[in-house]
Amino acid sequence: MADPRFFTRAGPFRLGDLALIGRATLHADADPDRSFADVAPLDAAEADQISFLDNKKYVDVFSGSRAGACVVHPSLADRAPAGMALLLSDHPYRSYALIAQAFYPRPVSNPGVAPTATVAPTAKVDPTAQIGPGVVIGDRAEIGARCLIEPNAVIGDGVVIGDDTVIGANASLSHCILGKRIKIYPGVRIGQDGFGFAIDPAGHVKVPQLGRVIIHDDVEVGANTTIDRGAGPDTVIGRGCMIDNLVQIGHNVEIGQGSVIVAQAGVAGSSKLADFVVLAAQAGIAGHLKIGAGARIAAQSGVMRDVGPGEEVGGAPAMPIRQFWRMQARLSKLLNEQKGR
Amino acid sequence: MADPRFFTRAGPFRLGDLALIGRATLHADADPDRSFADVAPLDAAEADQISFLDNKKYVDVFSGSRAGACVVHPSLADRAPAGMALLLSDHPYRSYALIAQAFYPRPVSNPGVAPTATVAPTAKVDPTAQIGPGVVIGDRAEIGARCLIEPNAVIGDGVVIGDDTVIGANASLSHCILGKRIKIYPGVRIGQDGFGFAIDPAGHVKVPQLGRVIIHDDVEVGANTTIDRGAGPDTVIGRGCMIDNLVQIGHNVEIGQGSVIVAQAGVAGSSKLADFVVLAAQAGIAGHLKIGAGARIAAQSGVMRDVGPGEEVGGAPAMPIRQFWRMQARLSKLLNEQKGR
Amino acid sequence: MADPRFFTRAGPFRLGDLALIGRATLHADADPDRSFADVAPLDAAEADQISFLDNKKYVDVFSGSRAGACVVHPSLADRAPAGMALLLSDHPYRSYALIAQAFYPRPVSNPGVAPTATVAPTAKVDPTAQIGPGVVIGDRAEIGARCLIEPNAVIGDGVVIGDDTVIGANASLSHCILGKRIKIYPGVRIGQDGFGFAIDPAGHVKVPQLGRVIIHDDVEVGANTTIDRGAGPDTVIGRGCMIDNLVQIGHNVEIGQGSVIVAQAGVAGSSKLADFVVLAAQAGIAGHLKIGAGARIAAQSGVMRDVGPGEEVGGAPAMPIRQFWRMQARLSKLLNEQKGR
Repeated sequence: MADPRFFTRAGPFRLGDLALIGRATLHADADPDRSFADVAPLDAAEADQISFLDNKKYVDVFSGSRAGACVVHPSLADRAPAGMALLLSDHPYRSYALIAQAFYPRPVSNPGVAPTATVAPTAKVDPTAQIGPGVVIGDRAEIGARCLIEPNAVIGDGVVIGDDTVIGANASLSHCILGKRIKIYPGVRIGQDGFGFAIDPAGHVKVPQLGRVIIHDDVEVGANTTIDRGAGPDTVIGRGCMIDNLVQIGHNVEIGQGSVIVAQAGVAGSSKLADFVVLAAQAGIAGHLKIGAGARIAAQSGVMRDVGPGEEVGGAPAMPIRQFWRMQARLSKLLNEQKGR
Repeated sequence: MADPRFFTRAGPFRLGDLALIGRATLHADADPDRSFADVAPLDAAEADQISFLDNKKYVDVFSGSRAGACVVHPSLADRAPAGMALLLSDHPYRSYALIAQAFYPRPVSNPGVAPTATVAPTAKVDPTAQIGPGVVIGDRAEIGARCLIEPNAVIGDGVVIGDDTVIGANASLSHCILGKRIKIYPGVRIGQDGFGFAIDPAGHVKVPQLGRVIIHDDVEVGANTTIDRGAGPDTVIGRGCMIDNLVQIGHNVEIGQGSVIVAQAGVAGSSKLADFVVLAAQAGIAGHLKIGAGARIAAQSGVMRDVGPGEEVGGAPAMPIRQFWRMQARLSKLLNEQKGR
Repeated sequence: MADPRFFTRAGPFRLGDLALIGRATLHADADPDRSFADVAPLDAAEADQISFLDNKKYVDVFSGSRAGACVVHPSLADRAPAGMALLLSDHPYRSYALIAQAFYPRPVSNPGVAPTATVAPTAKVDPTAQIGPGVVIGDRAEIGARCLIEPNAVIGDGVVIGDDTVIGANASLSHCILGKRIKIYPGVRIGQDGFGFAIDPAGHVKVPQLGRVIIHDDVEVGANTTIDRGAGPDTVIGRGCMIDNLVQIGHNVEIGQGSVIVAQAGVAGSSKLADFVVLAAQAGIAGHLKIGAGARIAAQSGVMRDVGPGEEVGGAPAMPIRQFWRMQARLSKLLNEQKGR
């Protein structure tokens, strides 16, 4: 089970309730009243714990598991060991996620402002929000209901934060408007000047960055990620985007809803990503490009041209992913031919 | 116009004054006494706003713009719509930058030390500096005139900060000497130990890092960037360098004046960059190399050899940029030949 | 000498004592009672300073040096100038590191809790620990003897920190257990949620991350690096690992002892690195891989397959390093053939 020093478990839950929570169907043989106390991985789960099978590679582990219950795709139900209760789901990992959220809900916030926080008299902080020690909230900023602002975070003048949003420790926000149920991780930087200046041998001349950062509902922004504000237009992060750690988002970038940006990737200024784009780790997108809906950019790619909807690209400079793999194969062949000489 | 929750506009300005500010020439037809209230992009500007044209791609937008005035290169003046007042400049983007700075000047600081700041009794803080809430300033540190130290920044013992410098929220500085008019963005780390140790199977042995970081005037250092102090010599950032977010600068690195380092690039220990080098995004420079004045390193390059003055390189390992593009073309051709078989 | 504003020097030391400290042998001609006041590089050292020669490239500098003493490999002893006292060592750089540590020891901490720190009543802070201004320590956290928690760091609920560990300014830790003699640099993020969610067009579903981060003794973690906690298993950093700045370590990653991870490298979720692996700058390791003991991953590599013990790989996708260099040579040749046509 999860270390109780760090995690507080809810429950136990009836199996029937867990099926509802996980949007799964209870198998005919399963007892809806059976009680479960925790989630656990297949190889560690006990009789009062529920697990999941999402990857066919682990079917044997599933067949040998002592878990009392398991979420599984219907097609694999017949591989279950005797006595295991089954929750059938077309999306077992999602079902497991929902069930695990029930056992380990977000801690209820402890409303109020810590004595060492500094809140400007003109700021509006909802009385149900929790403002941690050392937090600084600027003039006219607005903090929504049930927000949690972790210790030593800095919220700049005029920043607006929607309900149920969490701002991590030591993060800093300025020139931005955030929606609801957003999670900003520790050390994130949002709203600082974009990297815009007129090159001049006598001294580069900074161009005032007059836009904002707009972050829509249900977004996560990973630790130490940086999102610059727009130069004139806004930088916009669409609803439900998942952004990992140490990512760089340049000024004027727009990202559609549900896009996923993995650690250490970067998007240069003014590029537009449509909905449900996946940008894998350490990849880079040059400035002023358009990336179509559902496009997938492989890890460490360097994208220098527009990418169409649903297209999959890789390499630096990035090319269609099949071409990239054909090129790798061709290079290996060349190398072997050379050795044969 | 810029969101008034975040930006305070100055002005209005006479067109004649804006020409002087922007180092531009007023076109003969333009009325120097006409009043302007704001800057705006070509496609959004109104009669009392001034815009700019810097990219020939947008000439048609220029010709159709309703902006009351526009900064433009003399060679494109004849494409202006009737009634638009023109400011002629050989560097329209720089002229625009200067004019926009006039409309949106840096906020005047609010001198004084916040009650929750901790300033060592031996530190010298100029009475015109603004020290934000939660700031910590160590023994014998010196903060110059009109500096702004944003909330929760940490200034270590002995650090010296010149006049008119801004230190961003949650940044931390140690073992460093900073010049004037520098802007350090939120979350920047300056002066920590370099990555130096003697490899030892029984336990690597850390080598004391006995140098400093010296940052000359007019430098910008982007959010969450890290600059390690020297091992014995100093790490030095030259006058007017522009450094973007999430950049890594290793110990003993020296960077000449006016160099530009784009997001997520890295320079390994003891490499020397001369003046006006451009290091594009996600590029890396190995240790102990020399990069000549005006050299340009393409995005995601991996530089493993010295680069001469004015040279342009790309690829990993980096090669002259023309060779890199020829190699890409040759590879594509090879791939097509293979398909033809 | 090191700038006394930032460094406090110990000593002077007898040469005989320095030999013991550096695990070196005093050359027969050297006077063990001669007194030394500082370390210095070969080209700057004076008569009362001790230097070192570790790289044959600098033998001429050694021969011309005015250093009063020098650590050197026995095989190069005959190149010393007249009058220089020699300390013979098979590992001159390590010997120098140990001697330099003697001259510049870690500052003694100043026990106590700063008045602006916030320490939860249920936290246990050893009375010999130094807790800086603005530090926040959560419920039931434990801080060991002689620890230094620098200003504005945030230590989450339940976090355990062993003796003699330093937590840098503005760092934040949660859900983690740290050993002894660890150095966490400024701005590091440890223990936040891993990047785990079930993809869902209606809104990705976050999977609760129920593991921890375990960091063993004598580890260093560089500035602004991020280490996510496990999803169920723990993320584990082995004894004596050296991790540089801006590195990303994903959830469930395990790293063996003595491994070295250079700046801006990343390790994706669930990969396991054995002991003494070297991962060079800006390299990436995909998820769920195994990297064998002593493997060396070149800078900017993209590792997509398991790497065997002692193997050396480079390129993206990574291949054996010799193959990588042969391929580069072959590509250059191809390019020249094309030009010849």
